Amino acid sequence: MKIQSPPGMRDFYPEDMRLQNWLFDAWRRVSLAFGFSEYEGPIFEYLDLYTLKSGEGIVSELFTFQDRGERNFAIRPEMTPTLARMVAARANALPRPIKWFSIPRMCRAEKPQRGRLREFYQWNADILGIDDPLADAEIMALAAAFFRDIGLIDDVVIRVNSRPLVSAALDKLGVPPEENERAFQLIDRHDRLTPEAFGEMWDEVYKDRLSSHKLAGFLANADLAACLEMSENAGTEGQAAAESFKAVWARLADFGVQDNCEFHVNTVRGLAYYTGAVFEVHARKEGLRALMGGGRYDNLTGMLDGPAVPGVGFGLGDAPVLELIRELGKTPELADELDVFVIDADRELFSQALKIADDLRRAGLNVDYSYKRVGVGKQFKQAAARGAKFTVILGAEFTGNQEVVVKNMTAGTQEAVAAGGLLEHIAASLKNS
Amino acid sequence: MKIQSPPGMRDFYPEDMRLQNWLFDAWRRVSLAFGFSEYEGPIFEYLDLYTLKSGEGIVSELFTFQDRGERNFAIRPEMTPTLARMVAARANALPRPIKWFSIPRMCRAEKPQRGRLREFYQWNADILGIDDPLADAEIMALAAAFFRDIGLIDDVVIRVNSRPLVSAALDKLGVPPEENERAFQLIDRHDRLTPEAFGEMWDEVYKDRLSSHKLAGFLANADLAACLEMSENAGTEGQAAAESFKAVWARLADFGVQDNCEFHVNTVRGLAYYTGAVFEVHARKEGLRALMGGGRYDNLTGMLDGPAVPGVGFGLGDAPVLELIRELGKTPELADELDVFVIDADRELFSQALKIADDLRRAGLNVDYSYKRVGVGKQFKQAAARGAKFTVILGAEFTGNQEVVVKNMTAGTQEAVAAGGLLEHIAASLKNS
Repeated sequence: MKIQSPPGMRDFYPEDMRLQNWLFDAWRRVSLAFGFSEYEGPIFEYLDLYTLKSGEGIVSELFTFQDRGERNFAIRPEMTPTLARMVAARANALPRPIKWFSIPRMCRAEKPQRGRLREFYQWNADILGIDDPLADAEIMALAAAFFRDIGLIDDVVIRVNSRPLVSAALDKLGVPPEENERAFQLIDRHDRLTPEAFGEMWDEVYKDRLSSHKLAGFLANADLAACLEMSENAGTEGQAAAESFKAVWARLADFGVQDNCEFHVNTVRGLAYYTGAVFEVHARKEGLRALMGGGRYDNLTGMLDGPAVPGVGFGLGDAPVLELIRELGKTPELADELDVFVIDADRELFSQALKIADDLRRAGLNVDYSYKRVGVGKQFKQAAARGAKFTVILGAEFTGNQEVVVKNMTAGTQEAVAAGGLLEHIAASLKNS
Repeated sequence: MKIQSPPGMRDFYPEDMRLQNWLFDAWRRVSLAFGFSEYEGPIFEYLDLYTLKSGEGIVSELFTFQDRGERNFAIRPEMTPTLARMVAARANALPRPIKWFSIPRMCRAEKPQRGRLREFYQWNADILGIDDPLADAEIMALAAAFFRDIGLIDDVVIRVNSRPLVSAALDKLGVPPEENERAFQLIDRHDRLTPEAFGEMWDEVYKDRLSSHKLAGFLANADLAACLEMSENAGTEGQAAAESFKAVWARLADFGVQDNCEFHVNTVRGLAYYTGAVFEVHARKEGLRALMGGGRYDNLTGMLDGPAVPGVGFGLGDAPVLELIRELGKTPELADELDVFVIDADRELFSQALKIADDLRRAGLNVDYSYKRVGVGKQFKQAAARGAKFTVILGAEFTGNQEVVVKNMTAGTQEAVAAGGLLEHIAASLKNS
């Protein structure tokens, strides 16, 4: 019986896995550089954890099941509810700020179709327990640092905005704050709709307060200075919003990423969840979607009866990043990390070859050899196919005076080395290469 | 509403995650040293993949669910079926031997109770596509290398055996090979049963052929030499079994691990799956169970209509390892990997402090700072709590002549360094520490 991989799920053969690990390593490296600590949670949670946050409507998007005790569970579709649960459980014990990241795998019950994944990985980073523009700027700087780390910083732009700022501006234009949520959802879709479609949808709700025509004029001309000015003239809350966003913007300069950012009034994010500064990272190349988004939220653990915990964070899936580097032709070439391939020129020496392989492995080198006792030429081919940096050959010199021949596979040079000094020789060569 | 972690599932707070990563890093490091390549598969598979291998009885041990297309899936309870599926799909394209490892997370529908995990990680390693005693020995050497790497090699013993060898011996004693499977299952349980219970169970099946009394005598005295001799006198198959196992045993010496192994006739593994050499790693400390097991199997992909693929491999869970290091009091102390904590002695300098933090982060260092503008003493306390290796202090020297004070937190020494040369100074200090 032949059984396929489940629809929308990926197999990671070694060449795929090297690419995944390259990505995960970059996420980890950058997170640690910024002083974040890694956490993880269970692959499934009580179903309630998700319906509590998102309502019953979420259930059809989840893989749900019961155990024999008839408890209801769901494979996690996102990390935030787990983060909320874990932080709520220790809210009073964790030192602030809580700077945490994770690289969870998660599933969504997408309809199986080409290119739509049911399982993916996501880099999540959050700064919790502090409501400070510094945190907003640092989380954006962290996202920027990842794209810099993988050499794509000039291929993306970080669109930054502030919900309270836009809220104050809309208030001035005629849409009061208590009617903002729907307006944000519409504005979030603005760039993906035709002007006609957007106008129709907007006017259906807001025509009497603010015509789509007037709104379009605002959106087209609202640069940072204009929005700050409107906000500063919109009462105490507006002034606070302007102050707060100016502080975020200044900190972006401290973190050296202001030039990678642009103020973008349409970027308001579609989720009611967000309450402050928001951002999205977009590919500069035409036709590509937003790669990631994030922003400030008010109270992570509120729904779990925890103490109030403000936060700012983001999520970035593996698929959008891998798609971007493919689109840009920048997929890295990643070989096996093999340091040494040991070759026997005489099968009588194979046992000795294994001992040498073992010595080098114990010293921390990545070492392999041919399983088949074939000619030296074939063994060299295997070494090359594996991308080995060095080959170590045991032949007549070994039988005669305990010497091996070390070949540098990149430089093509080779020399005889006393077997007893082999490890030092290779370690030194690796250090200089 | 308060929601708990699901029963039997673990949350990994940063301190737990550091320990997991320490373990995963060791598994990865050792696997790569031995020339293995990493792979991964989906978190769930078609349910059929598991029932095909293990029968319908397995279903009650799985978390199963349907998607909206009424396809049946199960969260993976082990990696071997996924490995079989992936190898079968590319069996003719993959160069042999296939040396693969993985660190999958997986779930089993255990009854929730204290200490019984429903989710765990497992290190899997297999050498496929080759039936050679060299592979059997190398897979055992790989397991040994892990325990050596984490400093526990003297706390464990590798019990090695060969099913064909025991089969030949049993044949000589009166139990023909076609009745072996049941005998293996009983012998596998021998050490966990009282002599009386074992005797009763054995005699129920085999009394007429081989009394439990006579078997007990055999098990008690069957050292390697005795088993080899019996096997060599048991016809062609017995001779082949003896030759093969002698080759495995000799290769264990080539890999420098023979001294960590002992021949153990009771170690036959309970699964019908195994067809050749088998092994288990046991803690030497009394009262601890087998930590892991593995062995040779005939045809990994047979059930999937793939071409015949012989293999040898093992699985090692994270829980047994972590339990062992706890029992032995050898849990490593793992701090945040923070290189530098930047301190401002004057809040006017904080913006400059962030710029310095940013420079160091870009150079690959792990850097943090205090979010609150508090006194220098408090900032030092935070740095110490985070285990920072160095603190960099911006004070009067910075305002005056662009110098910072670098304090080595381990040595307690400090010196003034030009801000422009800070990165080099710290990089050099880290290299020497």
